[in-house]
Amino acid sequence: MWRKELHPVVAMGTFNHYVIVKFKDGVAVDDLIQGLEKMVFGIDHVKSFEWGKDIESHDMLRQGFTHAFLMTFNGKEEFNAFQTHPNHLEFSGVFSPAIEKIVVLDFPSNLVKAPA
Amino acid sequence: MWRKELHPVVAMGTFNHYVIVKFKDGVAVDDLIQGLEKMVFGIDHVKSFEWGKDIESHDMLRQGFTHAFLMTFNGKEEFNAFQTHPNHLEFSGVFSPAIEKIVVLDFPSNLVKAPA
Repeated sequence: MWRKELHPVVAMGTFNHYVIVKFKDGVAVDDLIQGLEKMVFGIDHVKSFEWGKDIESHDMLRQGFTHAFLMTFNGKEEFNAFQTHPNHLEFSGVFSPAIEKIVVLDFPSNLVKAPA
Repeated sequence: MWRKELHPVVAMGTFNHYVIVKFKDGVAVDDLIQGLEKMVFGIDHVKSFEWGKDIESHDMLRQGFTHAFLMTFNGKEEFNAFQTHPNHLEFSGVFSPAIEKIVVLDFPSNLVKAPA
């Protein structure tokens, strides 16, 4: 097992919620993202939140998706509480109609290399 | 601008590289991920690396994708150095043939809510 020899500290990280989207044409994306940020700040269960707009990936790899959103939680129970939080449900009603396509992945993170 | 009132510290974070994949049937995924971890530890430009296997998202939202990989870099120049690093290019030759479908997004991260 090279893993144990090289880095014995492979650790479980947070519970992560990744959302990759392409918005419909004509959507006011900046307003939506501001709404998303506001929603996140109103829900303590969300440990961290970052997002970005792709500037670099090749078209073939990006496949039309433009934005990535990442939230982290201190475990699955906190994530579950977020999923059913009234503010989240309310915001989903605004967010969902703006989406042309989406991929969502929810998983316990394996933190292999931690920021120095 | 509610943003400034609510949280004036919206900050630029790292440069992020997100890879979402579905592996081909029969692929030895654990071996591939060990190879990926080894590659990451051999390239100092990679600031952090975490990954996970979806356990929770609805089929409709997951869309067949199973794994997410996230690397962060201290800026785009570090990311560029990673992209052309010999170890990365060598590993891509192993990784790419194992992929059934993939989405890649590369972007400067907007860190809205930082881990406490």
